[in-house]
Amino acid sequence: MTRDLPDYVCACGRSSVPSAGRWRCDCGGTLDLAPVPLAWNPRAGDHSLWRYRDAIAVPGRELSLGEGMTPLVDAALDGEPGVRLKLEYASPTGSFKDRGAVMLVALARLLGADRLVADSSGNAGTAVAAYAARAGVPAEIFVPAGTSEKKLHQIRGHGARVTVVEGTREDTARAAAGHVERTGAFYASHVYNPYFYEGTKTYAFELFEQLGGRVPDTVVLPAGNGTLVIGAHLGFAALREAGLSGRVPRIVAVQAERCAPVAAAFAAGRAEVAPVAAGPTVAEGIAIAAPARGARILAAVRDTGGAVVTVSEQEVAGSHAALAARGLWVEPTAAVAYAAVRRLRAEGSPYAEGEVVAPLCGSGLKASL
Amino acid sequence: MTRDLPDYVCACGRSSVPSAGRWRCDCGGTLDLAPVPLAWNPRAGDHSLWRYRDAIAVPGRELSLGEGMTPLVDAALDGEPGVRLKLEYASPTGSFKDRGAVMLVALARLLGADRLVADSSGNAGTAVAAYAARAGVPAEIFVPAGTSEKKLHQIRGHGARVTVVEGTREDTARAAAGHVERTGAFYASHVYNPYFYEGTKTYAFELFEQLGGRVPDTVVLPAGNGTLVIGAHLGFAALREAGLSGRVPRIVAVQAERCAPVAAAFAAGRAEVAPVAAGPTVAEGIAIAAPARGARILAAVRDTGGAVVTVSEQEVAGSHAALAARGLWVEPTAAVAYAAVRRLRAEGSPYAEGEVVAPLCGSGLKASL
Ligand SMILES: Cc1ncc(COP(=O)(O)O)c(C=O)c1O
Ligand SMILES: Cc1ncc(COP(=O)(O)O)c(C=O)c1O
Ligand SMILES: [Zn+2]
Ligand SMILES: [Zn+2]
Repeated sequence: MTRDLPDYVCACGRSSVPSAGRWRCDCGGTLDLAPVPLAWNPRAGDHSLWRYRDAIAVPGRELSLGEGMTPLVDAALDGEPGVRLKLEYASPTGSFKDRGAVMLVALARLLGADRLVADSSGNAGTAVAAYAARAGVPAEIFVPAGTSEKKLHQIRGHGARVTVVEGTREDTARAAAGHVERTGAFYASHVYNPYFYEGTKTYAFELFEQLGGRVPDTVVLPAGNGTLVIGAHLGFAALREAGLSGRVPRIVAVQAERCAPVAAAFAAGRAEVAPVAAGPTVAEGIAIAAPARGARILAAVRDTGGAVVTVSEQEVAGSHAALAARGLWVEPTAAVAYAAVRRLRAEGSPYAEGEVVAPLCGSGLKASL
Repeated sequence: MTRDLPDYVCACGRSSVPSAGRWRCDCGGTLDLAPVPLAWNPRAGDHSLWRYRDAIAVPGRELSLGEGMTPLVDAALDGEPGVRLKLEYASPTGSFKDRGAVMLVALARLLGADRLVADSSGNAGTAVAAYAARAGVPAEIFVPAGTSEKKLHQIRGHGARVTVVEGTREDTARAAAGHVERTGAFYASHVYNPYFYEGTKTYAFELFEQLGGRVPDTVVLPAGNGTLVIGAHLGFAALREAGLSGRVPRIVAVQAERCAPVAAAFAAGRAEVAPVAAGPTVAEGIAIAAPARGARILAAVRDTGGAVVTVSEQEVAGSHAALAARGLWVEPTAAVAYAAVRRLRAEGSPYAEGEVVAPLCGSGLKASL
């Protein structure tokens, strides 16, 4: 028995039934899911995000590789009270993208898709390839030229086809979307498919449980396309609406100084995000010059009384080194959120008061070196 | 309040109180721990191996990075009934060694060690370096010449000193032990320090809980120095002695054909393991020509009615590819156990009947490529 899947809805007012070929609204807008009241019933014996299966719109537990329920640890054994880190890198494929990838592949199966397409220069691509392999759904992953041999080797090892696109990340996304349009393949896009957030919203549920049934004062989250920001906001808002938490934590979204379109829009008080010309950054995983859900990221941050901040290349490097010196081995992008925590604490910012949690989103083992 | 630490005991009859400088018996023998009855009291809300803290002789939960409680998944969505894989690679440092490393570093702190020494060409070295960093205990890691830049970079990133030893793995161990003898440093050895098994024994406890309070018919485990074989046996034996399980699973220990001293001794019906001249193998993590606890590995296998088997280079490669094709990305050594499962199933071996569980011990992201 399959439960009913929530409809896709768009800001333009249209709604549609999920199908393998649909990835955006007829108006061209991004799709959200029709809201469903939170069914809060964590299963104590399940040590994955599927402990929240009643609150997840897509049934996919059999696909699970144990994603979710990542460790929450003190930032330091002593010396940094109130700061906790959530080790998203201790995930089956080494990043938090597993939370969403398992949802998309489960959805593809449910919709009877005979193949799927994804585009990513980074963690989403390997996560989707891995879960597609587990599900036995043929996958084609579009990557920008210059993607490391190590990553291509892994994607191919999972049996997926790799298509290398000359050009930017945006060109890669366009090529993938074009392929989807031509072939009718399921677009397993962490950017466009709102079912991805059914996975990332469990980040909020886990924090709530791991803190003994309350939310922290502030969550600091990296923001490129905002899949964790938006997911976490959905989760915290659901806890608030269900009356389980009296408030939501402030969300502080973090971008790299050299590619900060959302931070620019936030600072200017705008509701929409304008594309930027971005410089190169070590935080390649969040170097998104034109985030498709920029307005949604801004809305999430503002709803919580939070902020969007930037960190410099040097701060990211300093954060990476500080984490390593404490036994935490992450990829450069994954040092961004903690870099912001350090900055906020040093500045005595109101966002640094009370209990702060930041994720470490990707494993240091991912580097080619 | 610190609980009393169990004494070190040796087969020669001597016993001693754990201290920072002690790593073997005065007779030269390897140390075990004086047995303690199992205190079975899993803490439901703890999603790490510390849920078994009452059964673990060393208090170290504050050091935890969330190690343990790794996912147990079906080997395939369909087609391979009764075979399950335990994803040890989804650990904080990417291998099962975290289970033991956290114990050794906690012990070092408890004993007031001001620095620690470890030797490893592989996963144990990075795990010990990471936990030493978390604990703030200075560490020196001895590695054989030829250890990858990637690994050295990580160990140094954790603030540990690296000493490269020209020669074999055995030479490296001798250099480390010599340094320990000269300096009185704590020897955080996964081979010699029996507290390491306080961590690896939780592998058995987790399986018991994850299967709903029973043990599988067979556990297939890689064996180099045997830290997982010995730990798992201790755990299963404790469950049996406490009357929680009527039996122990058969333990099938797996070695690489090209370096199989334990398999040779098992086949010959011997109680002791003689060193071998080993060839090169892709399963470098278990290429141990002279395992210090060889007799203990044999005893564990025989106590359970199990066996020691070998797998060829080709079988390891085939297993690695089959795992990747299902979304499971492991380092070559970590494909060894599943290679044995495939062989046993194909041969219709009695060890392949019923419920079989194999671990995937290390992450494919560890490779330099
Ligand atoms: C390590 C890491 N951190 C953060 C992010 C940012 O996620 P998002 O683009 O969804 O905001 C990514 C995305 O790939 C990532 O790989
Ligand atoms: C991936 C992997 N598997 C298996 C083993 C074998 O462990 P042991 O030598 O304790 O038997 C190791 C040891 O380093 C390892 O790294
Ligand atoms: Zn629309
Ligand atoms: Zn002795």
